[in-house]
Amino acid sequence: MKINSNFLNLEDSYLFSLIAKKVNEYKQNNPDKEIIRLGIGDVTLPLVPAVTDAMKKATAEMEKTDTFKGYGEEQGYGFLRRAVCGYYEKKGVSLDENEVFISDGAKSDLGNILDIFDTDNTVLIPDPVYPVYVDTNIMAGRKITFLIGNEGNDFLPLPDEKTEGDIVYICSPNNPTGAVYTKEQLKLWVDWAIEKDAVILFDSAYEAFIRDENLPTSIYQVPGAKKCAIEFCSLSKTAGFTGTRCGYTVVPNELVRENTSLNKLWLRRQSTKFNGVPYIVQRGAEAVFTEPGLSQIRESISYYLNNAKIITETMKELGIWFTGGTNSPYIWLKCPEKMSSWEFFDLLLNKYNIVGTPGVGFGKQGEGFFRLTAFGNTDNVKKAMDRMRQTSLVMSS
Amino acid sequence: MKINSNFLNLEDSYLFSLIAKKVNEYKQNNPDKEIIRLGIGDVTLPLVPAVTDAMKKATAEMEKTDTFKGYGEEQGYGFLRRAVCGYYEKKGVSLDENEVFISDGAKSDLGNILDIFDTDNTVLIPDPVYPVYVDTNIMAGRKITFLIGNEGNDFLPLPDEKTEGDIVYICSPNNPTGAVYTKEQLKLWVDWAIEKDAVILFDSAYEAFIRDENLPTSIYQVPGAKKCAIEFCSLSKTAGFTGTRCGYTVVPNELVRENTSLNKLWLRRQSTKFNGVPYIVQRGAEAVFTEPGLSQIRESISYYLNNAKIITETMKELGIWFTGGTNSPYIWLKCPEKMSSWEFFDLLLNKYNIVGTPGVGFGKQGEGFFRLTAFGNTDNVKKAMDRMRQTSLVMSS
Repeated sequence: MKINSNFLNLEDSYLFSLIAKKVNEYKQNNPDKEIIRLGIGDVTLPLVPAVTDAMKKATAEMEKTDTFKGYGEEQGYGFLRRAVCGYYEKKGVSLDENEVFISDGAKSDLGNILDIFDTDNTVLIPDPVYPVYVDTNIMAGRKITFLIGNEGNDFLPLPDEKTEGDIVYICSPNNPTGAVYTKEQLKLWVDWAIEKDAVILFDSAYEAFIRDENLPTSIYQVPGAKKCAIEFCSLSKTAGFTGTRCGYTVVPNELVRENTSLNKLWLRRQSTKFNGVPYIVQRGAEAVFTEPGLSQIRESISYYLNNAKIITETMKELGIWFTGGTNSPYIWLKCPEKMSSWEFFDLLLNKYNIVGTPGVGFGKQGEGFFRLTAFGNTDNVKKAMDRMRQTSLVMSS
Repeated sequence: MKINSNFLNLEDSYLFSLIAKKVNEYKQNNPDKEIIRLGIGDVTLPLVPAVTDAMKKATAEMEKTDTFKGYGEEQGYGFLRRAVCGYYEKKGVSLDENEVFISDGAKSDLGNILDIFDTDNTVLIPDPVYPVYVDTNIMAGRKITFLIGNEGNDFLPLPDEKTEGDIVYICSPNNPTGAVYTKEQLKLWVDWAIEKDAVILFDSAYEAFIRDENLPTSIYQVPGAKKCAIEFCSLSKTAGFTGTRCGYTVVPNELVRENTSLNKLWLRRQSTKFNGVPYIVQRGAEAVFTEPGLSQIRESISYYLNNAKIITETMKELGIWFTGGTNSPYIWLKCPEKMSSWEFFDLLLNKYNIVGTPGVGFGKQGEGFFRLTAFGNTDNVKKAMDRMRQTSLVMSS
């Protein structure tokens, strides 16, 4: 018997373990110092009352024979798929409920969707990027071409006449850069995909952070996208569901390749390899899309966006180049004084007792850059920025 | 771009949709008849109080910043993995907590585990069987050899000197036949797998229904199994979690192929393509393994086993050949009078107003057989058996 030898081509990521090791060493040597973490890629505010109320009610239903729920639809309950359609309706996007698939999160679906594509396709992946896109394709043995993100294109790569590929990943607002594509820029990708018969995998996990009404919160706001794009979204960052696990994936009925409906292929994959999301969680997710739910999560997101603003204003004061931070929880900055990502990490940790994430951990193009996140506590964010404003220390390092 | 054309080799299963169609037609034509469903493969009793109490407490934790839980470990929380280890300890099986992986259910893991194996392996699958084993391997383009189950081997196929393959599925207690392998029989499979360097995928989703202490509830009760078997289990049937979604998979550290730890491969797969099970659900699952939890679920399972006994006693009275039904919720019977599976289905529906599942829906070898399940309400089971005792009607059909 043979193992899948593609797994042996995966590089071990030491990013977060190395960060933890360095932080622990520093703490042991400096037990009196207060460390502020601005590297967290996880929400910190609790679930909103609309959600927990719905989950308590659903738990009570599970206690009685006549309201108990066994297996649900693998694709998700109709009540939740219709709630997602209602959310899209407000974005100006009309979906049929059979185009919406409920899952335990965007990470699962972004990995599992590859089951429906031949391993012989070439995949285009931005660099820097969320590492899961790369690893899931290495596991399947697919050829990867990187799309270079840099200061010159504001970390928003676009197709040109030489761009060739079968599947392209787009994450907007981006993790780690916080950069957001405009509708005009996404249109270039949609037109490219239609021309090349390619498929766009659009990761919109951070769409709820977009407050600028001119920016797209769904790729389907771009004409033609239903013919070439699958959209992945999650309640993880939208409603603090990182530990509650619920996402949704849209596969339009219009999306056909080799005379085959990708919606039908994904339905077959999910009904064969998945048994749906807990009923209790689906009721919690449904509550997110009610009026009280939407207003409560808006408040949580405003809290994080305020943190982001505190960070970006400090960067401006310090004259540090950055992107993101206005319609995103991520701030992607250029390390000052031509420092490498890890040099800047060490400086922040040792001199300012601030922990962030070295950009090089997200790809080669991330070298010399650094990610700060807005998911912390506001008092701590302010304190951290006060420390960083001691610019002279940065320069003297 | 190319789709995964293996999907086009999948046969559409019309089993449950055809059953639903026939039942609906009958109901429309006979609105006054009371139909009893003995085809349900889903639990009907509510979650036990130990579980819902734990879930309510966990929901309350999610409401406050200082007890809120974001991302957990992809492999599952330590508290739940240790609870699973404690459950195995009682079976006489010692596991390390890093050998246990928490998932949203056995169906997901049974499908996803194939990611770590080369598509070039040959897979042995019993016939009749749970259709998911076949479909997930067709999707990946693997070669399948069927292991014939029939009256002669009590639907418990065993290896002989000609048996060749790289991966073998064993489900015991079996779905759909309810047949249970003895330790001596499983030992034949373990010895075979070690000799051939093969891997056993052992589906023990129905282990909690085993009351005969001589029968194995885990393949690891058989010496050598840790060197060749992965075990999949679920709380779906154990604790009524079909709509709550939690299972666990054991990949022993001793299981090494091509000098590679399958435990490490699966960890890498899960941490890349999965983000864990809801915290609330993991707390509910942990409660299953407490003393009150175990005693409460035992009571639910006794209820179903009593239903099974009512059915098997009737079959004995009627002189109908069957297997299962003593350490399993499934009763697999031979259709009387050499009827085909669907002929017997029609007879049961039209004459007795009972719905079951035609055996041919689980594979070619299921033709002429029929599955009844014990998940219904006891009063209805009794009523259904009273109807079937009218043997003369069966014979005159």
